Amino acid sequence: MEPQSLGPHYSRQFDEEIERTRAQVLEMGGLVEEQLRRALRALAKGDSELGDQVAQYDYRINQFEVLIDEECSRMIARRQPTAGDLRQIMMIIKTITDLERIGDEAEKVGLLAAKLAVQERPASRYREIRHLGDQVSDMVSSALDAFARRDVSTAMEISQEDKKADEEYESVMRQGITLMMEDPRSIPRVIDTLWVAKSLERIGDHAKNIGEYVVYMVHGKDIRHIGRDGKRSYAESLAQEAEEGQQTV
Amino acid sequence: MEPQSLGPHYSRQFDEEIERTRAQVLEMGGLVEEQLRRALRALAKGDSELGDQVAQYDYRINQFEVLIDEECSRMIARRQPTAGDLRQIMMIIKTITDLERIGDEAEKVGLLAAKLAVQERPASRYREIRHLGDQVSDMVSSALDAFARRDVSTAMEISQEDKKADEEYESVMRQGITLMMEDPRSIPRVIDTLWVAKSLERIGDHAKNIGEYVVYMVHGKDIRHIGRDGKRSYAESLAQEAEEGQQTV
Repeated sequence: MEPQSLGPHYSRQFDEEIERTRAQVLEMGGLVEEQLRRALRALAKGDSELGDQVAQYDYRINQFEVLIDEECSRMIARRQPTAGDLRQIMMIIKTITDLERIGDEAEKVGLLAAKLAVQERPASRYREIRHLGDQVSDMVSSALDAFARRDVSTAMEISQEDKKADEEYESVMRQGITLMMEDPRSIPRVIDTLWVAKSLERIGDHAKNIGEYVVYMVHGKDIRHIGRDGKRSYAESLAQEAEEGQQTV
Repeated sequence: MEPQSLGPHYSRQFDEEIERTRAQVLEMGGLVEEQLRRALRALAKGDSELGDQVAQYDYRINQFEVLIDEECSRMIARRQPTAGDLRQIMMIIKTITDLERIGDEAEKVGLLAAKLAVQERPASRYREIRHLGDQVSDMVSSALDAFARRDVSTAMEISQEDKKADEEYESVMRQGITLMMEDPRSIPRVIDTLWVAKSLERIGDHAKNIGEYVVYMVHGKDIRHIGRDGKRSYAESLAQEAEEGQQTV
């Protein structure tokens, strides 16, 4: 299709293509969520086989990333999208980079869970980490929901959730350090659980990134580097606009 | 400029724009290198002020990321690039994402260095970490060189360097665990140095990513998920081609 033939026909085809690609992103996101769930279940149940499986299936996520990347390039080259459409494609490309890295972190959690499974398991110990795991899993789900529904207010909430996850992470850290100082024999094991916590904290960061892309995709406003206060006031101004019935979305 | 007016004029303007954007990427890369150097010096010298400075200047890197992102979108929208040109732009967008995250990790190292600076400093202790720091700094420089000169063989070498950095990282980990078990009072401090090591290891990963984008940019081959063996055989096939005088670069 040549650039000259822009028009309603072009626009419908583009919309179809972008919706198909967005569906692929959500499919990839579903895989990533599944991997994360498995990794956390492997940790909770002490199931080393399940933990190892997470690592085995990471390639499917990677394949999706390459596929969607190519899809996006093809769309740009063939369709020569408008600024708004281009913004959507750009945000898809960024979103799948973060999804792929969530998959990488889930893989690390799976491998650590497999390693921890064959060691002595303090029944209560992983409760805190599982709680952190639930928090960041919810963040990933919210990010994918926000992406699917182009929902800015859900996307903006993730940033607040990330703050809570960071606090939980700090608390896990402090407890781990106390535990190690009380019982130095526990050090190797506790260190592995701290790595799990670190990976989960990163997953939260990636979910937050995806939320930021959604805001940019919908509003064209880049909120990546404006800090939490900036985000809060932006969220408030959006709410204000909505109330006044002047929302431009 | 309209899509209809493609031609030599278009092509020269596009080349100029892409070279200008590539220069900005290298400028951003220079800032990132400087931040990493400062963070490592803060650690080596126990200079808490310098460590804090790294965090203060992170915003400059973030500004570059936003600026270059916008530049790239504008180029695509205005110039409607060919598949090859588009590939270059895509790889610029991916490269700056990894550069920005190297900046984030350097910031974390700076803050940890500032925290460690006010504690008791075991003179020999940070030697290993500094060694790891030198390794990953070299990887970042190589990645930027490879990007600047579109140099595939340098880019491919980074993957091998990353393997060495991973080994060094594992060795730092093991030593840290031994140290903590021998002297539990050292735990909080050692944990902070392990976080430094973790950040450095991540920086190595990001440098490796940038190397992979260079290969894709030049050869159109996506080597992100083919593993080290796949990369080695790809490097060999490139060397073979070069020997036979059939290299297509």
